[in-house]
Amino acid sequence: MSLSEFEIIDQYFTPLGHWQGPHTVMGPGDDCAVLSPPLGHQLCVSSDTFIEGVHFPVGASGALVARRTLAGAVSDLAAMGSEPLAVTGALTLVAAVPDWLASFSGALSELIQDWQLPLVGGNISRGRELSLTWTVIGSVPTETYVTRSGASADEDIYVSGWPGRAGLALLKLQSGQQPVAQLAKHYLAPVPRLMLGQHLRGLASAMIDVSDGVLADLNHLLDRSALGARMNARYMAFDELLQANADSPAAALTHFLTAGDDYELCFIAPASARAEIDRLALKLALPLNRIGQTKAELGLVIENLPEALTESMLIKTTGYRHFT
Amino acid sequence: MSLSEFEIIDQYFTPLGHWQGPHTVMGPGDDCAVLSPPLGHQLCVSSDTFIEGVHFPVGASGALVARRTLAGAVSDLAAMGSEPLAVTGALTLVAAVPDWLASFSGALSELIQDWQLPLVGGNISRGRELSLTWTVIGSVPTETYVTRSGASADEDIYVSGWPGRAGLALLKLQSGQQPVAQLAKHYLAPVPRLMLGQHLRGLASAMIDVSDGVLADLNHLLDRSALGARMNARYMAFDELLQANADSPAAALTHFLTAGDDYELCFIAPASARAEIDRLALKLALPLNRIGQTKAELGLVIENLPEALTESMLIKTTGYRHFT
Repeated sequence: MSLSEFEIIDQYFTPLGHWQGPHTVMGPGDDCAVLSPPLGHQLCVSSDTFIEGVHFPVGASGALVARRTLAGAVSDLAAMGSEPLAVTGALTLVAAVPDWLASFSGALSELIQDWQLPLVGGNISRGRELSLTWTVIGSVPTETYVTRSGASADEDIYVSGWPGRAGLALLKLQSGQQPVAQLAKHYLAPVPRLMLGQHLRGLASAMIDVSDGVLADLNHLLDRSALGARMNARYMAFDELLQANADSPAAALTHFLTAGDDYELCFIAPASARAEIDRLALKLALPLNRIGQTKAELGLVIENLPEALTESMLIKTTGYRHFT
Repeated sequence: MSLSEFEIIDQYFTPLGHWQGPHTVMGPGDDCAVLSPPLGHQLCVSSDTFIEGVHFPVGASGALVARRTLAGAVSDLAAMGSEPLAVTGALTLVAAVPDWLASFSGALSELIQDWQLPLVGGNISRGRELSLTWTVIGSVPTETYVTRSGASADEDIYVSGWPGRAGLALLKLQSGQQPVAQLAKHYLAPVPRLMLGQHLRGLASAMIDVSDGVLADLNHLLDRSALGARMNARYMAFDELLQANADSPAAALTHFLTAGDDYELCFIAPASARAEIDRLALKLALPLNRIGQTKAELGLVIENLPEALTESMLIKTTGYRHFT
């Protein structure tokens, strides 16, 4: 079983390059791909690396790796309000295992079409550990992109979807339990909120994708606008599935606030946008919950915390830091 | 000595993001960078991964890694005739060594300005081996990009600069000799041929950068256009420095044809472009040598080979294959 770099590309990746979007002039196979972005658009660009044992479990299937890592990368486009344009992938393999490659390539083939993100290039290397770097390129109508900064005091803080579900599913999987399917799918096949992000252009004053947990990522938003926030734990207890599967209400809230595995969007919008955001939630069939308000006074206060939980327990849970 | 991911970024990479080009709307620090490509241009995109011990020597200085890997990535833009627009870098470190990081970051700071390629994003991870993925983005006036295909029979085959010098320098370094400075610089600080590539738009019918060696990369060009070639070894013996430093004329020719460390450009152009290409060589102070001609008949023939060298010895030297 010895596949060369070229055989791997031919067998598992060249077929993926055959599907291209309306803005690809030339797909993979030359020194560069050539793209023609929509007229009047600016580009959004982001690169993310994912390493086995750090960003996904050792021994994860090819499909799981493709689904979780590409969602993580694409989520950065969603957080800018960007439309997808193209992706390149750099895959470093320890060995060429046909089953794993088929699983990875099969899932990737579905994802790039579901998310309208043609694979325009990349490369395959051999290394001492399995890792992947995705570079996603998107486009937005000029000057409509949404940044992490730009929020004002007394605006609403929202989070999309069901934060915490993926983290709870992972916890159950790691402890040998089988999470219910509705919970598991959030971990196994997270969906970046591309449509939501695009609809929030002109509505949200600031936005970020939840990769380090709602609390840590909300803190990034508040920092950028030099704001504080007043949150209410009652507004975070809407997810009956999370409540039913977590060990306690306090555990459910901890998953909600600190798990970074869902790739939901956290955003801030003025009160004047409430009616439109509520309509958007119905249109997309996606919860958009107001969980608090920005305040001019610095600091983050959470009211109605369950007794078992203190703010300091939550606040010390910041994002994962690789070199500490 | 324990630097967190955020401290490494703050200390060694955030300063690099402060220099941006005219087409950067927003540099690093948000979910994505935002770019505004020149009006009427298309984009060129390429990703390349470089791994310690595979693509650069174990223990290489930060500056050497930055210079050789970024040149390799940018060379793909040159080969399309593209102007540089932006780069993202994904760096995986085994440990955070301040001296290495300072050397890497210092060299990178010079390169991105020399090559007008702002660093707009990226990330730092910790892993079991040192590796780097660059994604370069460039732009070309619509429909002027040069591909690997498109050559016709009886056109001229050119190569830029001094192929073989970097490979010979590396060979000497690996065997403990100190190559003369003029030779060494081609290995230590290769220069991607961005200006040449741009000037060849409208002149070259096909182009590729030499990353696997002149012979292997020329074969890619010929394959794409279903052509053969008739070459003349005498036209490849112009480099007196290479001749003087190689063990023999046959060794010099082997370095010229098979070393892939220079990142020169190999291109094909009709005879009608000769005068303009000769003027271009003078203007850029860069040799542009005609080393043969394309032929309708398949196969690659090299005339006037030194006696010590057979074609089959050369032709079996194809590019490095990672998984064989």
